[in-house]
Amino acid sequence: MAGKLYLVGIGPGSREHITPRAVEAIERSDVVVGYRSYLKQVEDLLSGKQVLASGMRREVERARRAVALALQGRRVALVSSGDPGVYAMASVVFEYLAENRIELEVEVIPGITSALAAAALLGSPLGNDFAVISLSDLLVPWSEIERRLEHAASADFVIVLYNPRSSKRSWQLDRARELVLGYRSRATPVGLVRNAYREGCEVEVTTLGEMDTSRADMLTTVIVGCSRSFIYAGRIITPRGYKNRYSLRD
Amino acid sequence: MAGKLYLVGIGPGSREHITPRAVEAIERSDVVVGYRSYLKQVEDLLSGKQVLASGMRREVERARRAVALALQGRRVALVSSGDPGVYAMASVVFEYLAENRIELEVEVIPGITSALAAAALLGSPLGNDFAVISLSDLLVPWSEIERRLEHAASADFVIVLYNPRSSKRSWQLDRARELVLGYRSRATPVGLVRNAYREGCEVEVTTLGEMDTSRADMLTTVIVGCSRSFIYAGRIITPRGYKNRYSLRD
Repeated sequence: MAGKLYLVGIGPGSREHITPRAVEAIERSDVVVGYRSYLKQVEDLLSGKQVLASGMRREVERARRAVALALQGRRVALVSSGDPGVYAMASVVFEYLAENRIELEVEVIPGITSALAAAALLGSPLGNDFAVISLSDLLVPWSEIERRLEHAASADFVIVLYNPRSSKRSWQLDRARELVLGYRSRATPVGLVRNAYREGCEVEVTTLGEMDTSRADMLTTVIVGCSRSFIYAGRIITPRGYKNRYSLRD
Repeated sequence: MAGKLYLVGIGPGSREHITPRAVEAIERSDVVVGYRSYLKQVEDLLSGKQVLASGMRREVERARRAVALALQGRRVALVSSGDPGVYAMASVVFEYLAENRIELEVEVIPGITSALAAAALLGSPLGNDFAVISLSDLLVPWSEIERRLEHAASADFVIVLYNPRSSKRSWQLDRARELVLGYRSRATPVGLVRNAYREGCEVEVTTLGEMDTSRADMLTTVIVGCSRSFIYAGRIITPRGYKNRYSLRD
């Protein structure tokens, strides 16, 4: 008898921002699989369970193990930070299932992804259409990322950057900033949020002209405003357009 | 003494997908303000509180009332479905505060926005870079929306469409489909999710060529895959690119 695989999003990290469904899925599981530091965030839910923690960049291995255990009849929770569908484990699991023509009961449990967590801490930068782009070129050619940056900048999307910088990927954020500056002014608001809703949470509001790209790392999400975004009282605000239609003045 | 304003995202609707922080903010508030049908979803949290429910398209009025009450010293929860920052109440509140130079303590509480809820029910359509676009041209000129659709399609973003269709806006989704078909094949996977995680939840997986746009309404989120998205076992999967680097075959 086949078991079940839960792809669980635990949000940014603090227990305040994890959904009851995510907690329940972990509680119902016999085995919990995940990247070591994400599992720490739900440590109190793990007692009495088989726990398979692994290091970074072991996504394929984690997917394979989680599927194998579910096929043996276990209930397995594969834990991702944020949302499992956004630069996390859902795609690699489904790709693996498809590639090997495996049928298995899978439930994806959404979570608060970094774009939403960072935006909430910055104000309302996502108030109009936005594009989400990962600057990691480990799995995607840089030319493709650059093309998306160009188009997003040109069409005046608010731009959310995941994986902006790591110790080995040190120039991509500078290049992205340069590209966007081809379309937007130096005064464009930029927010950097590191460790959103976790210990060591840092929120910085700056501009495209002034931003210090070296302050970003793998734990940082960067949000670049559109041409109409502005800063008020330390927050980034992207208007939806109410002012075009209604009076907001008292 | 000024009070506090919580901008609360309650997610798609079911209590399983609302965060503890959102529940806590409502519990701590003296007054709860929101669109009538959203407040129904958290009815059990409202007893003993002042409740100000209003109809659709009263965003500016709701923002003004919520701010006025907080300035009188009340703790006010202004409730949005999904996430308050994504086509919801956060921007209008911050725009209003900025416009009138009001300083007030505001906390934004993120929620599971429709893009994430719909994606989880569809599989993993958001497995690579994606663009979020609202097709509502009530506050934004259609030419601007069209421009963003063109660029998103051209740069091969997965595209998430909010507010795809209403009784008064009946042609926008057809036009969007036509535009995207200029860049993508008719076989491109499309998912329509109506009432995600609520009563009457409907999930449809189809293609750009076959989709019936008349099935969408204001309660529907549409996700259009990118050129690499595919359908397996009734799910839409957008690969992140693991196959380029690793073997996924057993």
